[in-house]
Amino acid sequence: MGVVIPLEEQLQEPGIDGLLVLVAQDMERVNQTILSRAASDVSMIPEVANHLISSGGKRLRPMLTLATAGLCGYAGAGHIKLAAAVEFMHTATLLHDDVVDESDMRRGKLAARMLWGNEASVLVGDFLLGQAFKMMVEVGSLPCLDTLSSAAAVIAEGEVMQLSAAKDTATSEDDYLAVIRAKTAALFGAAAEVGALLGRRPKPEIVACRGYGLNFGIAFQLIDDALDYGGTSAKLGKNIGDDFREGKITLPVVLSFRRGSQKEREFWRRTLEQNKIAEGDLETAIATMHKHRALADTIERARHYGAMARDALELFPASPWKFALSDVIDFCVNRAY
Amino acid sequence: MGVVIPLEEQLQEPGIDGLLVLVAQDMERVNQTILSRAASDVSMIPEVANHLISSGGKRLRPMLTLATAGLCGYAGAGHIKLAAAVEFMHTATLLHDDVVDESDMRRGKLAARMLWGNEASVLVGDFLLGQAFKMMVEVGSLPCLDTLSSAAAVIAEGEVMQLSAAKDTATSEDDYLAVIRAKTAALFGAAAEVGALLGRRPKPEIVACRGYGLNFGIAFQLIDDALDYGGTSAKLGKNIGDDFREGKITLPVVLSFRRGSQKEREFWRRTLEQNKIAEGDLETAIATMHKHRALADTIERARHYGAMARDALELFPASPWKFALSDVIDFCVNRAY
Repeated sequence: MGVVIPLEEQLQEPGIDGLLVLVAQDMERVNQTILSRAASDVSMIPEVANHLISSGGKRLRPMLTLATAGLCGYAGAGHIKLAAAVEFMHTATLLHDDVVDESDMRRGKLAARMLWGNEASVLVGDFLLGQAFKMMVEVGSLPCLDTLSSAAAVIAEGEVMQLSAAKDTATSEDDYLAVIRAKTAALFGAAAEVGALLGRRPKPEIVACRGYGLNFGIAFQLIDDALDYGGTSAKLGKNIGDDFREGKITLPVVLSFRRGSQKEREFWRRTLEQNKIAEGDLETAIATMHKHRALADTIERARHYGAMARDALELFPASPWKFALSDVIDFCVNRAY
Repeated sequence: MGVVIPLEEQLQEPGIDGLLVLVAQDMERVNQTILSRAASDVSMIPEVANHLISSGGKRLRPMLTLATAGLCGYAGAGHIKLAAAVEFMHTATLLHDDVVDESDMRRGKLAARMLWGNEASVLVGDFLLGQAFKMMVEVGSLPCLDTLSSAAAVIAEGEVMQLSAAKDTATSEDDYLAVIRAKTAALFGAAAEVGALLGRRPKPEIVACRGYGLNFGIAFQLIDDALDYGGTSAKLGKNIGDDFREGKITLPVVLSFRRGSQKEREFWRRTLEQNKIAEGDLETAIATMHKHRALADTIERARHYGAMARDALELFPASPWKFALSDVIDFCVNRAY
């Protein structure tokens, strides 16, 4: 499905539209691959998988694979299966995360585990992971397999790290960065790297694409963390406060805790470590974050990683791909305002 | 660690000892690989992994990889990492199974999920799966990667199939076979196949090794099912009745249900479908199975698949490897008497 974007709008503001147009045809093939590879005679598998897959994620990760393949002049078809594999790895992680976090909701719908149970979420996640590896093997590039299988291990390691650090308000900013580097940024980095690997580019360009993805991933996660408390906007949208209710320690909390008074630290310990949340506590949390500029500074940090991502691509000559990959960073960071 | 088996004992009864002696040196390297690859800076990962890994599983699956590599004259070192990868895939499945089945115990110890929680079991399983794929990629054989990644998807598919069929006493023998073919035998088949693939043997020999593993896996699972109700022995050992308490429909139940009276079918529905188990029900279940020869016939069925496994190897010339691989089938089947 080609998306027609009025040129005027495209010029007004850097965004995701340039990238969407460039990858539109490939993305259609990725979507078809995703649907056909989530199929199984065991009907529960496509039901669970499609519940999540069709719930309108942005498909940012597979888009990175398609875009860096384009940036690197890759002319084959392997990027389609690798992009689908990346999305399956992401979907498997979400299914397992819901079980781990005991989440009720995901992307505004009931989490799969609420409809089919924890068992199905665990096992369908495993199935998708298996299918992801099968697709990578079909593409047949050992360097790509190396990158993506390493990412799979690192992601799980990051999740366990987060589990160990969970509910500890004394988490340092460095600790927190190590967690999101592993659990979010590793897949962004791998997704961007495999596009370049397929293009058989020289080492520095492969490293550049990986660096782009990795830093973009960190920026993306930090913005997500800020948005969970409403970003810098005063008005509260939907899905605000999920992290707070789940007792997740994210950067806005880390900064607020460090900068806070003894009384404020007591507040964070009670709400996040002991999970004793009363009426009005979310509002207090947000007000405290604004007082200490924790949300604005989380976005500033994101901007820093976004700049690193943009610079990573600087050794590539100007091209529509390069501009689009750069613009999508701004799109991501600007979401938080 | 070389194990010295008195020749006399070895001759008395076909068993697992011949295989143990042949793979002893390689197995030592596999064990070292398993330990070093379960390591992580995130201390919870080796803790959870080693809890299960050190709990004395038989390591039958990695042994198959080592043995078929030997049978096929493979002289490299790739079989060590592939064998470790196979054991990691198995361990990951066990960790996820405990969560899915809500098991309290595993191999006579508390299940990992009871000590570290469901979250850790899910995520450490994911980590081990990632490490397994990393090791396969390091070995670098695309055919082996193909075989093992396909097995990973099939295993998960089999588990979901079991979930869908769970607690349905009307499950047919064919349905049940399809489940264990996927959830147990696929990994046995893949483990045996990759040894032959490494040896770069002609296609028929690779197919033979896969067939050996697959049919051995079915036999192994059927014997396990029979043992869960004490096999044909009248005395009850430990861990008897786990399947019964978890409401698992296994072949002894399928046969007893088919052959049973209306009243007996009511009994199976109450205990396994509705999970209403009263004092003495396990004894009644076992007595009913004996009455209908359900346990003896489950073992007979296992013997059939064992014979198929043995015949699959017949195209190989006589060798210590071939004898050992054949004997281990008898060892497995004879456990149930």
